[in-house]
Amino acid sequence: MSSFRDDGAAALEWAASYLERVRELPVLSRVEPGAIRAALPERAPETAEPFSAVLRDLDDVLLPGLTHWQSPRYFAYFATTASEPGILAELLVAALNQVGILWRASPALQELEEVTLEWLADLLGLPAGMHGHIEDTASTGLVTALAAARAASPGKRVVVCSEHTHSSTAKAARLLELELRPVPGDRHHAMRADEVDLRDACALVATIGTTSSTAIDPVPQLAELCAEAGVWLHVDAAYAGSAAVCPELRHLFAGWERADSIGVNPHKWLFTPMDCSAFWSRRPDDLRAAFSLVPEYLRVSEDVVSLSEYGVPLGRRFRALKLWAVLRCYGREGLQAVIREHLGLAALFEQWVRDAPGWEVVAPRPFSLVCFRREGTDEENEALLERVNASGEAFLSHTRLDGRLVLRLAIGNARTTEDDVRHAWELLRREAGSG
Amino acid sequence: MSSFRDDGAAALEWAASYLERVRELPVLSRVEPGAIRAALPERAPETAEPFSAVLRDLDDVLLPGLTHWQSPRYFAYFATTASEPGILAELLVAALNQVGILWRASPALQELEEVTLEWLADLLGLPAGMHGHIEDTASTGLVTALAAARAASPGKRVVVCSEHTHSSTAKAARLLELELRPVPGDRHHAMRADEVDLRDACALVATIGTTSSTAIDPVPQLAELCAEAGVWLHVDAAYAGSAAVCPELRHLFAGWERADSIGVNPHKWLFTPMDCSAFWSRRPDDLRAAFSLVPEYLRVSEDVVSLSEYGVPLGRRFRALKLWAVLRCYGREGLQAVIREHLGLAALFEQWVRDAPGWEVVAPRPFSLVCFRREGTDEENEALLERVNASGEAFLSHTRLDGRLVLRLAIGNARTTEDDVRHAWELLRREAGSG
Repeated sequence: MSSFRDDGAAALEWAASYLERVRELPVLSRVEPGAIRAALPERAPETAEPFSAVLRDLDDVLLPGLTHWQSPRYFAYFATTASEPGILAELLVAALNQVGILWRASPALQELEEVTLEWLADLLGLPAGMHGHIEDTASTGLVTALAAARAASPGKRVVVCSEHTHSSTAKAARLLELELRPVPGDRHHAMRADEVDLRDACALVATIGTTSSTAIDPVPQLAELCAEAGVWLHVDAAYAGSAAVCPELRHLFAGWERADSIGVNPHKWLFTPMDCSAFWSRRPDDLRAAFSLVPEYLRVSEDVVSLSEYGVPLGRRFRALKLWAVLRCYGREGLQAVIREHLGLAALFEQWVRDAPGWEVVAPRPFSLVCFRREGTDEENEALLERVNASGEAFLSHTRLDGRLVLRLAIGNARTTEDDVRHAWELLRREAGSG
Repeated sequence: MSSFRDDGAAALEWAASYLERVRELPVLSRVEPGAIRAALPERAPETAEPFSAVLRDLDDVLLPGLTHWQSPRYFAYFATTASEPGILAELLVAALNQVGILWRASPALQELEEVTLEWLADLLGLPAGMHGHIEDTASTGLVTALAAARAASPGKRVVVCSEHTHSSTAKAARLLELELRPVPGDRHHAMRADEVDLRDACALVATIGTTSSTAIDPVPQLAELCAEAGVWLHVDAAYAGSAAVCPELRHLFAGWERADSIGVNPHKWLFTPMDCSAFWSRRPDDLRAAFSLVPEYLRVSEDVVSLSEYGVPLGRRFRALKLWAVLRCYGREGLQAVIREHLGLAALFEQWVRDAPGWEVVAPRPFSLVCFRREGTDEENEALLERVNASGEAFLSHTRLDGRLVLRLAIGNARTTEDDVRHAWELLRREAGSG
């Protein structure tokens, strides 16, 4: 254990130092495709190398190939944070190496997963009694939900979603051989409830906080339609769901308490390291009907349903430990404070854009994502984005709304300050002027 | 960062101390269902707690609910190891928090994943040029393989496997609405090639090292049949595949180089923390045909195929870093040494059972799992197993072969010594005498 303690101290110091200097590193990696591969040996070593060699090559070989998701100047896609308690909990998760294939293989893993999902449901204002488990990503959660919906609705093979629904719904539908029926969005990119056709539908996927623009589908009306038609309602709140920890934002989540299943990703906006995707359902028996299989070698005497009976994988990591550590080390108030800070920073940036001639906010901003553009062509905006990202001083991404290319600035890193946001805005204006 | 350094030092010390004392802890958790839940608060705290409170409750509340997969006296299912370099790499993975949704989101993640899978293929004697990526578990890998096979074989909906194939094949087939056609096993529990019927089959799943008894399906003959019929051959070597690092064992893997896809779990027998399941395919275009979807918000200028286009999840962890750390810190010789040690310990235990009156080895032992039983009824053997496991001094599991209940002793923890195996054998004999 002496080398574990020594190597561990070096790894810990590397991590601490990385978090201290990450703001200064180019946010988007500047390597060319194939450069990292070319810098690595063709084969594993014949004999053991010290762990210090791994740390050395992490600096010398891999670091230039990292895009720094931990940078406070990361504003692309949805910005995330692996918080300190989450990081240290992952160390413990690995040291314990629990493999939750069934309850007795780790009672603490299973029961903590159930309890932390109850804690999180309570924090988000979800009704008590929904069955919770953790998936790796929302993509897998979509497979879980749609497989259960398909099994519960024999002969019905249509999944209704919006044209702005995340591509994971289309991916899951393809895997499950379901037909996708996209509904047009309204002028705010929310699903038009009056265009919903539930004939032959087994499921409807509504989104609170779409990926493109964080639009909010009209969940109360959709829940009503689904209830009447007996259609499984899945609410995808992968990004935005974490914001429900703030009571003043709960109105944006109206109706999600009526969903048959809900997905929220603590690895997006709840300071939990990748991966941790929360999944709740009020119809756990339908999940089991789709997934449960208990072979002889996993048969046991105790009468406990294993969490593996509710989804695809048999083995599961002790992900609950990191979520538990995050929820405890932030507390309800701490989580609320960071979310509110992010909303405030997004509002500030939005106001700067509104006030600046030649710039335009192009979508409502219910959460911490600002969709905007510079006057001019799509090509000019795309070129602006490339220059900004090439500077290394910030990383933003884009989408397409109403046929136009749009820039996205997403706030979600717990270490982002007003200075970081101002820096991004000044960078955008500087690069716009130089284009 | 001072609290990160201090909390980190405490977490590291907890992990080091845990690994030092884990041999002395009761291997199988003794808690009753619901006990851990009952010891946890009903809600998350309102205000932040220190990380030290998490460590305290890990000891006071969760520890009794852990089954110690890291114990050298863990012999159930397949024994695993989170090695020291693997554990510390997980700390780095969490600190970096890379989210591999597409190449530019982390070029190092994608290219290291490709390169480590090439290293591992080389270590295992697989042909160069297969496309590799990492899945969470072999269950997901089965979904990936069978979805690609289904897409590549329009109108063919049958999956052929053996009656001893792992339940993840049946689970994946159900998800994909494919019909399972199990083939009987021979007297050694290997698939009977003469009973294989490939009519309307899109895939055949062959296993090298079944979960029940580590039986080896006749892959060369099955590969020939599949090639003739144009059927996708998936080789499931989730447990045993790691043993191919030893050239003297390669004959057991004959034919797997002809597979369309192969799964091997480094988190089982290659000292990598949960989760890390290696997946190779010689038909990556068929994987992409089944899974690729690139929405506007992920469209980029560089011409690189993202690893997310080869499977279910969009986001991926930087799992390659831990596999890379393990391969480097063991080296080829180090990996071989531990595998050989495990085979030697299994051979020793097998010999003890053979030499003992009233005990019987009930299946061939190609790898590190010994299937055996005590003379007497199934009930008596099951009761014996329960007494052994209740002692806390070892943890074994069971299966059913040829209609009889069979005990399984699986060697796979890197810290297991001959003393640990002898202790388990003495425990079995003591408890058999007391039954």
